Amino acid sequence: MSSHHIVRDDQEPALIIANGASCDPELLGQLLEWSPLVIVLDSAMERVMKLDIKVDVLLGDFDRNFDVARYKESQYPIEIIHAPDQNKTDLEKAFDYLYERKIPAVNVVWATGKRTDHTITNLTNIVRYREKLKIVILDDHSKVFLLSKRFEKWYTANTPISLIPIGHVSGIHSENLFYPLQNDSLTIGYRTGSSNHVAKDGIVVIEHDAGDLLMMECFD
Amino acid sequence: MSSHHIVRDDQEPALIIANGASCDPELLGQLLEWSPLVIVLDSAMERVMKLDIKVDVLLGDFDRNFDVARYKESQYPIEIIHAPDQNKTDLEKAFDYLYERKIPAVNVVWATGKRTDHTITNLTNIVRYREKLKIVILDDHSKVFLLSKRFEKWYTANTPISLIPIGHVSGIHSENLFYPLQNDSLTIGYRTGSSNHVAKDGIVVIEHDAGDLLMMECFD
Repeated sequence: MSSHHIVRDDQEPALIIANGASCDPELLGQLLEWSPLVIVLDSAMERVMKLDIKVDVLLGDFDRNFDVARYKESQYPIEIIHAPDQNKTDLEKAFDYLYERKIPAVNVVWATGKRTDHTITNLTNIVRYREKLKIVILDDHSKVFLLSKRFEKWYTANTPISLIPIGHVSGIHSENLFYPLQNDSLTIGYRTGSSNHVAKDGIVVIEHDAGDLLMMECFD
Repeated sequence: MSSHHIVRDDQEPALIIANGASCDPELLGQLLEWSPLVIVLDSAMERVMKLDIKVDVLLGDFDRNFDVARYKESQYPIEIIHAPDQNKTDLEKAFDYLYERKIPAVNVVWATGKRTDHTITNLTNIVRYREKLKIVILDDHSKVFLLSKRFEKWYTANTPISLIPIGHVSGIHSENLFYPLQNDSLTIGYRTGSSNHVAKDGIVVIEHDAGDLLMMECFD
């Protein structure tokens, strides 16, 4: 079993293990190390059980004859949440759960890969949680999060950075990107800021006036 | 070598093998069977060579010390296109190439998976080719294409269907979907039509008045 059950400050990000493609166990291990709360979505539980991970919450609509009862004992004292609302994805329900528990931040793995509709929905729906939760979606090639109106972070030169507008984003300014943005607008499908990179070691600044802008740190 | 070099009508879709995650060789084999023209993007060529496929066009910016000369002989008479324009992805350059050659339709594989920024850019950028090219992006779990203002197709009951708006889409009507749309609007990040399915065996109709609506037929 992982050691995450040691009591930690709830301010550390929770971890959601969603139901897309599995990531490298090493990435998962690193995230588990610091996570005070582990939520698994629906039938991903079957894959998680093989990894010998202690799960705190199992959440899903369990609509595919998925037998959850057997986890009550093997994962005692797991909390099992049957969430049948068909207007939300299981991932959104897990975000809502964290918000209600006043947990401010979450890392999400296994949210990409496999079905393309799930991938794009999981990535883009984080924008509606802007005021509620700090969300980071990670996989073996990517780290994705929503930018605040002004974002600043130190990067090494040549770090790949992509800016993906979810809808239309205006008034974008950047500092220290190789392809600079100067009062630019980006529109999904028509003009995106994919495949940029950091110009030199140092602070990168990205500002925007309006809209939802996703930051993607990705590597091959 | 595959048998796709038999001369076929150029009206059959071309095939682009992009540079994301490889798909099931069986899917690739089915698409190659009918494709009059095979385009490989950049360093994906290294993986393609291992699959014993005859390639017609190799296109890319070749910016990572990628030695293309060696393919001139092994894939003779391959056309090698050095496309350094940094304002377009290699996939867009391949679409432009097909448009110039008046090839009306293309299937794309290996365009998803791996880097999330590439996946979302590849999927959403097809909207700007609406008037130029009929594009279908396929992977092991998904078939994605842009809907015309009125779309009609026969499906079996329960086929999973997701409608993903690239931006804002209005005036959507559906027939024979389990969760019907009636003059609905969808907005990426805020309200999408993911995880719907076909109500009963028969024709599905999807209409919309304005915007770019992606159809995703996906399965686990």
